[in-house]
Amino acid sequence: MSLNPSETAIVLIEFQNDFTTEGGIFHGAVKGVMDATDMLNNAAETVKEAREAGINVIHVPISFTDDYHEVTPNPYGIMKGVVDNGAFKKNTWGTEFAEPLAPLSGEIVIEGKRSFCGFASTNLDFVLRSRGIKNIALAGYLTNCCVESTMRTAYDKGYNVISLTDCCATLSQEEHDNAIKNDFPMFSQPMTHTDFIAILKNEAALDLKGKGYE
Amino acid sequence: MSLNPSETAIVLIEFQNDFTTEGGIFHGAVKGVMDATDMLNNAAETVKEAREAGINVIHVPISFTDDYHEVTPNPYGIMKGVVDNGAFKKNTWGTEFAEPLAPLSGEIVIEGKRSFCGFASTNLDFVLRSRGIKNIALAGYLTNCCVESTMRTAYDKGYNVISLTDCCATLSQEEHDNAIKNDFPMFSQPMTHTDFIAILKNEAALDLKGKGYE
Amino acid sequence: MSLNPSETAIVLIEFQNDFTTEGGIFHGAVKGVMDATDMLNNAAETVKEAREAGINVIHVPISFTDDYHEVTPNPYGIMKGVVDNGAFKKNTWGTEFAEPLAPLSGEIVIEGKRSFCGFASTNLDFVLRSRGIKNIALAGYLTNCCVESTMRTAYDKGYNVISLTDCCATLSQEEHDNAIKNDFPMFSQPMTHTDFIAILKNEAALDLKGKGYE
Amino acid sequence: MSLNPSETAIVLIEFQNDFTTEGGIFHGAVKGVMDATDMLNNAAETVKEAREAGINVIHVPISFTDDYHEVTPNPYGIMKGVVDNGAFKKNTWGTEFAEPLAPLSGEIVIEGKRSFCGFASTNLDFVLRSRGIKNIALAGYLTNCCVESTMRTAYDKGYNVISLTDCCATLSQEEHDNAIKNDFPMFSQPMTHTDFIAILKNEAALDLKGKGYE
Repeated sequence: MSLNPSETAIVLIEFQNDFTTEGGIFHGAVKGVMDATDMLNNAAETVKEAREAGINVIHVPISFTDDYHEVTPNPYGIMKGVVDNGAFKKNTWGTEFAEPLAPLSGEIVIEGKRSFCGFASTNLDFVLRSRGIKNIALAGYLTNCCVESTMRTAYDKGYNVISLTDCCATLSQEEHDNAIKNDFPMFSQPMTHTDFIAILKNEAALDLKGKGYE
Repeated sequence: MSLNPSETAIVLIEFQNDFTTEGGIFHGAVKGVMDATDMLNNAAETVKEAREAGINVIHVPISFTDDYHEVTPNPYGIMKGVVDNGAFKKNTWGTEFAEPLAPLSGEIVIEGKRSFCGFASTNLDFVLRSRGIKNIALAGYLTNCCVESTMRTAYDKGYNVISLTDCCATLSQEEHDNAIKNDFPMFSQPMTHTDFIAILKNEAALDLKGKGYE
Repeated sequence: MSLNPSETAIVLIEFQNDFTTEGGIFHGAVKGVMDATDMLNNAAETVKEAREAGINVIHVPISFTDDYHEVTPNPYGIMKGVVDNGAFKKNTWGTEFAEPLAPLSGEIVIEGKRSFCGFASTNLDFVLRSRGIKNIALAGYLTNCCVESTMRTAYDKGYNVISLTDCCATLSQEEHDNAIKNDFPMFSQPMTHTDFIAILKNEAALDLKGKGYE
Repeated sequence: MSLNPSETAIVLIEFQNDFTTEGGIFHGAVKGVMDATDMLNNAAETVKEAREAGINVIHVPISFTDDYHEVTPNPYGIMKGVVDNGAFKKNTWGTEFAEPLAPLSGEIVIEGKRSFCGFASTNLDFVLRSRGIKNIALAGYLTNCCVESTMRTAYDKGYNVISLTDCCATLSQEEHDNAIKNDFPMFSQPMTHTDFIAILKNEAALDLKGKGYE
């Protein structure tokens, strides 16, 4: 299949300073995988091509109030990591978009994200449905947390999901590799940004197959 | 039953200038019912008492980008009314909160609202669940549109729902009265703000019965 | 617009004996409006034409365990009416489909419905999305309860919603008329079954406008 | 913390013959991990203790119509595996519950499951909320597919989530181990069934911490 631009979006998850940039609260935690995959440059190149191809570029940032008073007072798991480290506070530099991946005027910025799946506390599904978007390509942080949760939900909601394997990063190479090898193919068609750009340019077709039971 | 303050919230729907205030785009359309019920003063008084009682005050505004590019390009029904009239645009006076009902520091402002049910495109359910809130009292605009849709969904989600009948307004007295008489009791316990304040002050008990089939 | 049959469904809400048929637990409560609108015959005729036109016919029944142990132990509002009357129990005659509106082999029967909106506790949205259905026409019970809640949610989810005004019934003519006059046009295009059949047969076009603010 | 039995449930995902039993369509695919962990016996023992402790036992089966006409005509990924292999068809032996894990009378059987997250197309969230259940312990198939998707969504919805690591199985030991090591601690508190039983018996406390960023 080929991708109708108006029905296709690249969904950029949390390209914000607390992840992307030296000095960001979790930058150190993800820097290893970022460097290994060169994901920031790959994502920036993909967005540039996406804009030229006329597909939708949708930004999904996360943010919290200063004292996290809108989330549970007793967090555990990954949320506890956010709260304990004081990450992604509104109106701080840490929640600002990384420069090469910041929204242009007229691009959609999803609102409400407080939890990990990109759909769970946001207007993402509303926007995608309202705009008639059927195909989404995912990039961002963390490979096996927000990106994968968003992927799983998008798959269950019937979207054609592409995962951009070299446009993601997480806390360790092992987690990154395992997610891409074992989980991504169940809920998406994984591919490199180069392969995705070729599809955008109609130099290759999308073969959406993923992985079933073997 | 009595209301545990930490498990209770008043949910204020769209107390924004485009509805509330002279010069607002839809103010003329709702002014008749607003005047008849004195809903703005009633709501302000209720919020004041809610703050004193220590219950959560949660604000649910609606807003859109300047060209509505995040909603369907072919709206019909009530959305078409919003778009055609250019209402509730971000960063305009029309989307600002009405003064007596504006959020105080530390109060939760729900994000993402683009459609009519207060849950449909927002983080409202996430916040209510995260904070352990079980009881919600609804006020705002329109009685039979956003307020009623929010009520219906809240009921289906298992909240104890109170509807503040003299803290709402809509396009005509007929619509207002019919919604309160016929629909509100199926999905909530309707009451006046005076009765709700008595419950907040533990001067009366909440008898949550509504209306079943007769 | 015309309706692509594969993208269109008629969604039949609770055409089950407890509503439809003499002896059903709530039949007496809805018989007045049923007789006034002849809704059962209208719905049956519409389904016959829908099948001939090749559009999807989707059935949305409600049912509960014998002691309602899967719902709240403290129901209020409309749910209390169901529980107190012992209605819609699984494996009873009351939950069986009314004969002229029973599913044919190969038609989809939605599962899980325990609450009032047809989407809230079911796989309805999953099925509609999976099948690529964009346009839905609603019929059934109660005009201002399950039918209207399903309509409101469908609208917020971006479906093109048609409400079949003479294929619904509720507890009183007043409630029926008010819902159709005041609420249905905000969230759907209301029309009679005759007008809908004309659209199905391509003898008329669908003009999806509803009602905005005036 | 200790677990209030009425607020706690064990959620059993797809203990059905197509997974559990010799001759089941996917039994061969999961037999390796099942044998290695003895998960069937562990789950059965846990359910026995759960019943004695008076916590809710909730069953989440999956099933499809004979020709899968309610799912997408063009499946990819894990759904394609289900369809191509003709698995989990209604009214076949393959969808029946495995004997030691079948529902007792009065236990809740969730309806509607067609996709992979246990919440996505079912009444699971409705039931859990209606019954006031806050704590859920997950067991079943596949470790990194339905179990993990259900876990991620449950976490985002604010449940206290326990994952029973030796009561799950998937297609390979590698996938099983990686999910438990890398993903489960972000969205749940992983533990063995023995540790969970000790908590049920109030011989140990629940320490819900999981894994944040390090």
